[in-house]
Amino acid sequence: MPILVQKFGGTSVRDAICIKRVAKIATDAQKNGYQVVVVVSAMGDTTDNLIDLAREVTHKPDPREYDLLLSTGEQISIPLVAMAIHDLGFKAISQTGLQVGILTEDKHAKARITEIKTEKIKNYLKEGNIVVVAGFQGISSATGEITTLGRGGSDTTAVALAVALGAERCDIYTDVDAVFTTDPDIVRDASRLKTISYEEMLELASLGAQVLHPRSVEIAKNYNMPMRVRSSFKPQDEGTLVQGVGKMELNNPVSGVALDESQARIAIVGVPDKPGIAAKVFESLAKKNISVDMIVQSTSKDGTNEIAFTVDKDTVEDATKVTKEIAKDISASGVTTDVNIVKVSIVGAGMIGRPGIAAAMFKALADTSINIQMISTSEIKVSCVIDTKDGEKAVKAIHKVFELDKVSKEKQKV
Amino acid sequence: MPILVQKFGGTSVRDAICIKRVAKIATDAQKNGYQVVVVVSAMGDTTDNLIDLAREVTHKPDPREYDLLLSTGEQISIPLVAMAIHDLGFKAISQTGLQVGILTEDKHAKARITEIKTEKIKNYLKEGNIVVVAGFQGISSATGEITTLGRGGSDTTAVALAVALGAERCDIYTDVDAVFTTDPDIVRDASRLKTISYEEMLELASLGAQVLHPRSVEIAKNYNMPMRVRSSFKPQDEGTLVQGVGKMELNNPVSGVALDESQARIAIVGVPDKPGIAAKVFESLAKKNISVDMIVQSTSKDGTNEIAFTVDKDTVEDATKVTKEIAKDISASGVTTDVNIVKVSIVGAGMIGRPGIAAAMFKALADTSINIQMISTSEIKVSCVIDTKDGEKAVKAIHKVFELDKVSKEKQKV
Repeated sequence: MPILVQKFGGTSVRDAICIKRVAKIATDAQKNGYQVVVVVSAMGDTTDNLIDLAREVTHKPDPREYDLLLSTGEQISIPLVAMAIHDLGFKAISQTGLQVGILTEDKHAKARITEIKTEKIKNYLKEGNIVVVAGFQGISSATGEITTLGRGGSDTTAVALAVALGAERCDIYTDVDAVFTTDPDIVRDASRLKTISYEEMLELASLGAQVLHPRSVEIAKNYNMPMRVRSSFKPQDEGTLVQGVGKMELNNPVSGVALDESQARIAIVGVPDKPGIAAKVFESLAKKNISVDMIVQSTSKDGTNEIAFTVDKDTVEDATKVTKEIAKDISASGVTTDVNIVKVSIVGAGMIGRPGIAAAMFKALADTSINIQMISTSEIKVSCVIDTKDGEKAVKAIHKVFELDKVSKEKQKV
Repeated sequence: MPILVQKFGGTSVRDAICIKRVAKIATDAQKNGYQVVVVVSAMGDTTDNLIDLAREVTHKPDPREYDLLLSTGEQISIPLVAMAIHDLGFKAISQTGLQVGILTEDKHAKARITEIKTEKIKNYLKEGNIVVVAGFQGISSATGEITTLGRGGSDTTAVALAVALGAERCDIYTDVDAVFTTDPDIVRDASRLKTISYEEMLELASLGAQVLHPRSVEIAKNYNMPMRVRSSFKPQDEGTLVQGVGKMELNNPVSGVALDESQARIAIVGVPDKPGIAAKVFESLAKKNISVDMIVQSTSKDGTNEIAFTVDKDTVEDATKVTKEIAKDISASGVTTDVNIVKVSIVGAGMIGRPGIAAAMFKALADTSINIQMISTSEIKVSCVIDTKDGEKAVKAIHKVFELDKVSKEKQKV
């Protein structure tokens, strides 16, 4: 029997009613001939509440203790899901990351999975169980201590498990119905994609579309594991299939528009034009474990450079501190930080080899009187940093320019 | 350095402020020259909330899943306590039951501890850590599955750890200041005992004084481990020392009066006078895992017997069902159940060899017009089942008759 991995996020297990819904979806899949592995996140706000508790106790929580604390979130949801499955008359057993043997690096708060033991799960499946696995957590293969995988950890657990078990597919149940051309809360005409490529999904995920975490999409892409994004509230709906083969309609160059509100912009101004300075800046940030997203370097008329980059808002204080130290070292004239920015991006494999796509996006912004602060491009993506207040306006304008409302309606007919 | 085990109950860790208070008490003990092991319960209502969640999902939770769920309660409190200790500049590490190696029988919801691995804890202590251990939980030595110890589990963990580690003492921090001659909420004159023997404490604990769980006192008694009952809200206060040697003032025959409101009474009436009937009744109850407390058998004028017994209110429905089946089998005339009863008891090693103590208690009840429904006695205890409405009145009357208000004041001076 083929194996199906189903992952349910925090909203999908937020209360007893939702948990029963999850049990129904999992047992229906078993009835349809699958061996089913369910991966669950912590219920609703559990993780946030645990983080708040830790903050009340200390400003600098020890990473080992923090991971032990956070791992309880999923350890609460898995037995509840197993009980709900039992209640429907099916066999189920829950497993923490430690119990399964989800081995990770010896790193707390953002460990990467190095290996997944599958024997135990396969035995439970053979016995007819639906196996309910805690997402987001593992154990350090070096020390046996409990680790957590950081953001998007449960998606990552699900896809990694699907790969390790040789599953037919990994279904990611979330609180949206599918992947849309843009945020439907911003553009009412935004609509659903029936399929999307890993590459496009990866760009959209990185850009804050927040449907799937890029880590999980990357694993799926590397192992060619089909994923389906769908809603636990509408289990009949097939959602969006994320896959490798080029089934997307390439006659439309842009698949989606994404708005990312999680970044802040830091700029070092008056940087002397000497080699090695950019390396120095980003090495120092990397040492502090601060991820940098966009980087733009420009030259002023006076011969000095400006180095601007964006970081996650969560890390902006640390990043600013580090940057100020470096600015002093390299005799730059100053550092500015701006948290009132957003990043708006277009994504589409269809833009490869088609000139003018970026220009069309910039024109749409210009026509709406939106000032662009930074630009960054890849083969299938164009991102612009703009003022926070212009974010939604920009998404609407771009969505319209690329006629995404029409495209998506055609796709829906399929 | 001597080892001190400190146990903190749910009220003592109910929020961040309380957790910081616990950290202070533990670090003060380390400053005073102890190697400190802290055992904690789940925060405040956490366990009750988890139980409610399980109930919302299913009526018959699977015991394995239920234990996995409940064990998260302590797994939340231990890292928080460790973090709070770090915040005071001390070393600490938290350990779940699984991580320590608290081995139990292969039985869920009420497993007994069979062995505690001490090597890991001892190493952590040697490195200068305060080791924070999750109470109430262990792992089955047969299957490695997570088990819980049932009621009073955290007290049991603490005393068992103290014994395994060869600790100097086990301090049980709770929300009362000490062991009292009776419930201070009922009798304002009730007051504190400076010391009490294991035997007396055991009777008081069994009788619903709810300060210490009898399982923990039993272990302490068997291994002669001194325990101290004290309040985490008044850490300077030494509370009550529970110990083996006869330091109690034997000139007072009664140490305390306890009121137990957790029992219900079941009676089988019109039982034919044949041998083996009592055995049949209590074997059937035992098979259903129903604990019976008091048992009284009496003969009516018509030659039939009445068998009355008390069970925990939580199990009264099951117990009544089982009893009715048996009543039918043995052709008894009927079964009555009464949940409106309480058990009032006096306890004291000093009553051994002193006639008239029980009689004095019965007289106190009679003088207050309280009807006694059942009587049960041991060497150091006399218990009477009476109507719920008479409970507090009975405690006051008995407390007065044995002049416990005066005794305790003298003891306080010591």
